[in-house]
Amino acid sequence: MAELIAALGGDLVGASDLSISRIASLAEADAQTIAFLANPRYQAQLASTQAACVIVAPAMAEAAAARASGAACIVTPDPYLYFARLTQWWTKRFRPSAPARIHPSAVIDPAAVLGPEVDIGPLAVIEAGARIEAGARIGPHCVVERQAVIGAGTRLAPHVTIGHDCSIGARCLIHSGTVIGADGFGFAPTQGRFEKIEQLGAVRIGDDVEIGANTCIDRGALGDTVIEEGVKIDNLVQIAHNVHVGAHSALAGCSGVAGSSKIGKHCTLAGAANLVGHIEICDHVHVMGATVITRSITKPGIYSGMYPFDEHAVWEKNAASLRQLNVLRTRIRALEKQNSEK
Amino acid sequence: MAELIAALGGDLVGASDLSISRIASLAEADAQTIAFLANPRYQAQLASTQAACVIVAPAMAEAAAARASGAACIVTPDPYLYFARLTQWWTKRFRPSAPARIHPSAVIDPAAVLGPEVDIGPLAVIEAGARIEAGARIGPHCVVERQAVIGAGTRLAPHVTIGHDCSIGARCLIHSGTVIGADGFGFAPTQGRFEKIEQLGAVRIGDDVEIGANTCIDRGALGDTVIEEGVKIDNLVQIAHNVHVGAHSALAGCSGVAGSSKIGKHCTLAGAANLVGHIEICDHVHVMGATVITRSITKPGIYSGMYPFDEHAVWEKNAASLRQLNVLRTRIRALEKQNSEK
Amino acid sequence: MAELIAALGGDLVGASDLSISRIASLAEADAQTIAFLANPRYQAQLASTQAACVIVAPAMAEAAAARASGAACIVTPDPYLYFARLTQWWTKRFRPSAPARIHPSAVIDPAAVLGPEVDIGPLAVIEAGARIEAGARIGPHCVVERQAVIGAGTRLAPHVTIGHDCSIGARCLIHSGTVIGADGFGFAPTQGRFEKIEQLGAVRIGDDVEIGANTCIDRGALGDTVIEEGVKIDNLVQIAHNVHVGAHSALAGCSGVAGSSKIGKHCTLAGAANLVGHIEICDHVHVMGATVITRSITKPGIYSGMYPFDEHAVWEKNAASLRQLNVLRTRIRALEKQNSEK
Repeated sequence: MAELIAALGGDLVGASDLSISRIASLAEADAQTIAFLANPRYQAQLASTQAACVIVAPAMAEAAAARASGAACIVTPDPYLYFARLTQWWTKRFRPSAPARIHPSAVIDPAAVLGPEVDIGPLAVIEAGARIEAGARIGPHCVVERQAVIGAGTRLAPHVTIGHDCSIGARCLIHSGTVIGADGFGFAPTQGRFEKIEQLGAVRIGDDVEIGANTCIDRGALGDTVIEEGVKIDNLVQIAHNVHVGAHSALAGCSGVAGSSKIGKHCTLAGAANLVGHIEICDHVHVMGATVITRSITKPGIYSGMYPFDEHAVWEKNAASLRQLNVLRTRIRALEKQNSEK
Repeated sequence: MAELIAALGGDLVGASDLSISRIASLAEADAQTIAFLANPRYQAQLASTQAACVIVAPAMAEAAAARASGAACIVTPDPYLYFARLTQWWTKRFRPSAPARIHPSAVIDPAAVLGPEVDIGPLAVIEAGARIEAGARIGPHCVVERQAVIGAGTRLAPHVTIGHDCSIGARCLIHSGTVIGADGFGFAPTQGRFEKIEQLGAVRIGDDVEIGANTCIDRGALGDTVIEEGVKIDNLVQIAHNVHVGAHSALAGCSGVAGSSKIGKHCTLAGAANLVGHIEICDHVHVMGATVITRSITKPGIYSGMYPFDEHAVWEKNAASLRQLNVLRTRIRALEKQNSEK
Repeated sequence: MAELIAALGGDLVGASDLSISRIASLAEADAQTIAFLANPRYQAQLASTQAACVIVAPAMAEAAAARASGAACIVTPDPYLYFARLTQWWTKRFRPSAPARIHPSAVIDPAAVLGPEVDIGPLAVIEAGARIEAGARIGPHCVVERQAVIGAGTRLAPHVTIGHDCSIGARCLIHSGTVIGADGFGFAPTQGRFEKIEQLGAVRIGDDVEIGANTCIDRGALGDTVIEEGVKIDNLVQIAHNVHVGAHSALAGCSGVAGSSKIGKHCTLAGAANLVGHIEICDHVHVMGATVITRSITKPGIYSGMYPFDEHAVWEKNAASLRQLNVLRTRIRALEKQNSEK
């Protein structure tokens, strides 16, 4: 505990000689557990939790201290942030990375540039001209194509593909199966056929970006696709060519952004939300789940467009009426006219 | 035919010395084909099919037997189930797996544990502490990270990633590109930035689970993400951290389940259906395609929420009216008030 | 410039001794740039662009020629098509493919058949009976399973999986992470469990098809899944078993087609559009973004079904009204009856 407080701060109240062996929620905690109370909704669990130590905000300090004898708490202004840092501290302490090594089965072109302390996993492929900066870790089976750059301290999980000429910033984390720098979807229709537009741009990703599994970020057609610093992208997200995502925005699972659209800073797209192409949304816009944004947004705020679900039979009737909604509007207008004429 | 009946049961009516070389639908069958009639809708095809043998229910036995001379049928209570088992028997007989071998190009940590009769494909990576149980088959290019467990008889297609500490049950089948155990999407927002919450849980998958291609199942934040026995998951499905899917449920392509939600047993999500986070749906709930479930469901049944499509010009008018629907409601109320006052 | 005109045609007006070093949009062009004007919307940029040369249609030739002295233009009937061909010419000239080679780290079964001039990347796996035709390029980490065929001149980006018995036509391009030939999602429900239907068909893909990253095309259950020539498919697209996509159709990112459905020729699905199973849409049907097609379409045209987004508070009220729409319709009918009786 002393080490923890030394590393992360906070005021320890109660016994300091606890032996903590896991982190859990209040409800699942036992006597070897450290837990946290961030959401006031769970305050009632404070009385019943078995946790040896609970991370709480000052307002909860008294209630937390009044628990069973021997129970401790850590008082800190933002318990959720403290919890996040605790998970980081925990991982570093109990699941340290193996020492960096270049696995002999990796296929590294002699013209690739490897910085100090880089780790190259088994069967990774690093092509000519690629640059892996200091301390970066390339997982098993990753492919880093020619002239691509992987920033310092960045980690690629297994099976990541980084296309030629793309660059990834420092301290990024990219999960398995993600493809950065496939061709954008660009064709010129001609006489009933499609003529390919070669995609000549690349993808530029800033520092401290995290990207989930099986996500795709396509290279630009002429200019680059850009993901600014601090952006967080979940699994199975589609980012088309020439998209620009502003710093510290977050895109949840199965969301998608069509070509050339621009997302401001500090925006969020909830799960399965979509933006059509060639639009722009300003900073601090929050798009709810399964919502399709079809035109530019210039005013910060929350935007929604999700069909409300219902029991199938009820939905069926309402959906049938929806297909005649404009007719219903006309009928209301007619009624209003009749009434006003009387 | 005799072998088939011996293996799968059913009553053979008519010629037993047929030479069958393929399985097809009634419509595409020829004189070397075995076909089946499961859906009464296709009953009319019975008269015209060229199939040498048709699998039918008892109610259809007479009609099937009355076909051209030389034509046979197999009578069984559930022809569709019989057909499923026939495909399995067919595969075992005509496309047997190659004998198990450890390919010399695989990179297997000396501290990995391999059970008897396991098959490790070319260029697979098995990390330290991973355990591959009896008869499991690991495809080319799979990565099984440290301490992960692959159950007996389970098969991983090429390019599957199983994250550290995750466990897969017995007799599972996981298709290419699927990622089990990437980090859940968890961050604490602080001063306009996101602080990573290390994901300390794992993924636990029961027996007899099938998972499609390029699907993602994230590891839990503190506890585990759990997929119970017999669950079937299609391609490009997103299962977020700490989700729990009950036994014998099925999730179709492009569906998604957000963090900490719980699906009961024997549920189905049709294609592109989504569940928001932190909700629970009870057993025997069926969610129709492209429907977003936004709150918990406690009553078994069918639920829908799909926008009805239409010709673009019609849709456009109705959609414009939809954006004023609440105003229309107020106008109806006003009309009702006027009428009642008269 | 002379070389370019020789290769691609068009009438060069103005200086022919330009040194062009990049292609860019009118707005981002500089004095070493060739740009194009395809969309009349951008006509105003013609006056201000810094481009050394602009590709224009005959109607714009005069305006383009009237720019600053030294500025050139290429006059051609279809500037966008010319631009597409320019990108192809550019790529061939400035980013030529490396000479074909079989990388020694690839694992190639002796019973695989390699045509002349094929390129096999590092760590690719080619199984027994697979056939790689003349000039095909198999990227690093690809897996081509037994009996699969890769047509002449086709290119697989890294990490592509081609399942057993599947065939890919000539001159195709398949991007990273894509899985062709995973099992279709087919099960016979029996006593609360699912019995697997082995998928005995394959996938057949025509010539000149392009497929994006992390897309899935499943093998057929009995017959084959078929993608005809010239089809273009984007990233993260789901094509279920026994689907048939007609020639020269295009499917944008995150779209999906459920089992046994058939898409005509020259159709388009915009982003996140979906087709349910067992339906058929005729030639020249265009489905707008996020639209779900739930029944067959026999009339060419544009079809939509997207919920219009709005500010969250506005949406919330309208969505609440939507759940009572059928009741509103009944109330309108009642009002009409009252009025007609008066």
